[in-house]
Amino acid sequence: MNQIQSYINEHKDRFFNELFDLLKIPSISADTAYKSDLLKTAEAVKLSLEKAGCDKVELCKTDGNPIVYGEKIIDKNLPTVLVYGHYDVQPADPLDLWDSPPFEPIIKKTDLHPDGAIFGRGSCDDKGQMYMHVKALEFMVKTNQLPCNVKFMIEGEEEVGSPNLAIFVKNNQEKLKNDVILISDTGMIANDIPSITTGLRGLSYVEVEVTGPNRDLHSGLYGGAVANPINIITKMIASLHDEDNHITIPGFYDKVEELSKEERADMAKAPFNLENYKKALDIEAVYGETGYTTNERNSIRPTLDVNGIWGGYTGEGAKTVIASKAYAKISMRLVPHQDWLEITELFTKHFTSIAPKGVKVNVKPHHGGQGYVTPIDSIGYQAASKAYQDTFGKTPIPQRSGGSIPIVSLFEQELKSKTILMGFGLDSDAIHSPNEHFGIFNYLKGIETIPLFYKYFTALSK
Amino acid sequence: MNQIQSYINEHKDRFFNELFDLLKIPSISADTAYKSDLLKTAEAVKLSLEKAGCDKVELCKTDGNPIVYGEKIIDKNLPTVLVYGHYDVQPADPLDLWDSPPFEPIIKKTDLHPDGAIFGRGSCDDKGQMYMHVKALEFMVKTNQLPCNVKFMIEGEEEVGSPNLAIFVKNNQEKLKNDVILISDTGMIANDIPSITTGLRGLSYVEVEVTGPNRDLHSGLYGGAVANPINIITKMIASLHDEDNHITIPGFYDKVEELSKEERADMAKAPFNLENYKKALDIEAVYGETGYTTNERNSIRPTLDVNGIWGGYTGEGAKTVIASKAYAKISMRLVPHQDWLEITELFTKHFTSIAPKGVKVNVKPHHGGQGYVTPIDSIGYQAASKAYQDTFGKTPIPQRSGGSIPIVSLFEQELKSKTILMGFGLDSDAIHSPNEHFGIFNYLKGIETIPLFYKYFTALSK
Repeated sequence: MNQIQSYINEHKDRFFNELFDLLKIPSISADTAYKSDLLKTAEAVKLSLEKAGCDKVELCKTDGNPIVYGEKIIDKNLPTVLVYGHYDVQPADPLDLWDSPPFEPIIKKTDLHPDGAIFGRGSCDDKGQMYMHVKALEFMVKTNQLPCNVKFMIEGEEEVGSPNLAIFVKNNQEKLKNDVILISDTGMIANDIPSITTGLRGLSYVEVEVTGPNRDLHSGLYGGAVANPINIITKMIASLHDEDNHITIPGFYDKVEELSKEERADMAKAPFNLENYKKALDIEAVYGETGYTTNERNSIRPTLDVNGIWGGYTGEGAKTVIASKAYAKISMRLVPHQDWLEITELFTKHFTSIAPKGVKVNVKPHHGGQGYVTPIDSIGYQAASKAYQDTFGKTPIPQRSGGSIPIVSLFEQELKSKTILMGFGLDSDAIHSPNEHFGIFNYLKGIETIPLFYKYFTALSK
Repeated sequence: MNQIQSYINEHKDRFFNELFDLLKIPSISADTAYKSDLLKTAEAVKLSLEKAGCDKVELCKTDGNPIVYGEKIIDKNLPTVLVYGHYDVQPADPLDLWDSPPFEPIIKKTDLHPDGAIFGRGSCDDKGQMYMHVKALEFMVKTNQLPCNVKFMIEGEEEVGSPNLAIFVKNNQEKLKNDVILISDTGMIANDIPSITTGLRGLSYVEVEVTGPNRDLHSGLYGGAVANPINIITKMIASLHDEDNHITIPGFYDKVEELSKEERADMAKAPFNLENYKKALDIEAVYGETGYTTNERNSIRPTLDVNGIWGGYTGEGAKTVIASKAYAKISMRLVPHQDWLEITELFTKHFTSIAPKGVKVNVKPHHGGQGYVTPIDSIGYQAASKAYQDTFGKTPIPQRSGGSIPIVSLFEQELKSKTILMGFGLDSDAIHSPNEHFGIFNYLKGIETIPLFYKYFTALSK
């Protein structure tokens, strides 16, 4: 057992308990009712950075939830790692599908986590993964092994599209100056197949409202004679995909990066078992764009998914009503070169244009962000790869993710540095779903791997 | 002023207050939370029938809400009128669209009701219209003018499809024996254009559930690679109409009654102003089946409307989730000769068949009923027509309604008698919608007209 392993072994119960305390605060950024819980969480993160050894920690005010900033500068001539993470979480509903309360963390074993996993909203996304960095710093500071400078920027609005982080980054370029950005907010293939995310999809998230008659109507007296906004919204949404599941918005694919045959062949080498995938989701068949594999569909291809829909009577029993309004939340995952603002505009124009007379349509853009690709020949990627080789005994596989961290491309643009996505979660950890969890193995392995990244990055930077 | 008008004038404040007391009880049959309110309402209706002069009144137990039965038999050789009505009401949501609380009745003036209208859930559908019959009986009994026998059957499950009334009717054929059935649960064209409903549409109401993956998924990691049940349900529902807004369910139109050119020409004579119709609903255009007028679309043609849809994240802000399940409530209005059980089966078979692999579909039939047409040469219709001529000074127009009272065709089948639909509401009274109301003119005119029906029906029966 090496020094870091011994340190983890000695302190791991405390590492669990400290994370549990964070997980108990329901820091749901999508719902303004939790405003004070977000502040409470920010203060807890601030305190944890101070305890871990940061010299200067502050809550930076924004128009929304505060950003926790902390730093430990040991030598201006040494490189600087900027750690980004977020302390806000997704909403926990539907609550009745949780086996244990979302904000009462508990350790339970699962098939993929025989050592146990921490169950609770935010355990993986992103409180657990963010806190690995705090504990890695603690180890490096307490054992005098911090080889370079470190800055932390932990925000509280990632799950709602980071509306205030961009302004903060633009206004604090000197403060945030760094040589590499380190983020743990993604996943890896399996506990015995480490991987590093090299690509992220962009995102455009909109809410649409379709209005028919000016009031709810009796479906007997008016049924068949006026446009029913629910029937209409289903027609409009259905028309956004053709029979090959291509998206029909004019111009949508114009800037989509087309991968070469070779690149696609390389991707296909990643381990993937379709039968297990279907079994895990209890589906008879996968579904998606004709001409692409499952792994391509959720990584290198753009998508359009309805994330929520509602209208009319949804209570118990029956009500024969024609609703005045119907609504849907729709998100599009974008690939490199697709501009989210342009896509949002194309969507809005198209969705409005396909509305029949007799309804009015309103499209409200929520938020979005650009996609991102990181090169595997950078010093940052190489340092991460070497760190994983030490702790997992295997070279990690570079992998494109279907998810989005909209802020990553902004970091590159504003701070001129590359981001390394060292994610330790598994796809099956149910982030954004009921029963979100994070493996104990993964949590501790992250804490063990991160200090090695610092070591190799500092060495390679010389 | 004749005797009935004088009686109404003298007692109208009491007539309002008594109705208000009924309207204050939230007897929502679709929601089991209101179970005790339904019982309370049934008891209030029982008491009102006793006070009005019924000899024998009882609450008849069912597997659901009780049926209030009352009768006054004056001579077994005279004809018997059976009055049917219901004391349950539609749910009141969306509550925020009500200008005054739904269960705190209040009189306010409107453009179409310059004398004022009673606002409150159930004011028109059907507590107000049912109570006209109670007060008409009171007049006839107190003034010794009841010319025949009368029976009342007031149920508490009409808004959920009368699941227990059919059994009650089947088991009580002798008790319910009658010569004509009288119902006020429909509307008329305008306060100066009286009409009598001669046709009702049938109904099939179903709830559909589409299940994709076995849990909610992150739309970034899985988006584009698995069937999203919300996207799928929109596609499935959209495909139920073709571009001419014909319903695509195989066999759906097989038994639809096709009206002759002459009948359609007769229908077209009913007063209808398309511009006013659109203006009242604030819509730019009407919408419906190609080849039919608005009045035809909502009366002689079958329809398919989504009454409610839900799935995924519908809260504030954004959540990037692929829901495990999506739901919709769908109702089909049917025309004479379409059998609702057969249509429900055709729907179920078709909807299940169009589901792509990768989702599971469950169709749950809610309730339904057959359509109905009443002949205008019957004694009952003639008696009603004469009554309206006396009180409105005009011959009422026979009119097909788009609404459904599923129980009416069962009455004919089981009790072998015709139903006369003397409805006094207006289409604009917002039944099933926020701000439901019932004109004071209409309420009192109903009380005035009903005794004349009894008079003419008894005379014509001799």
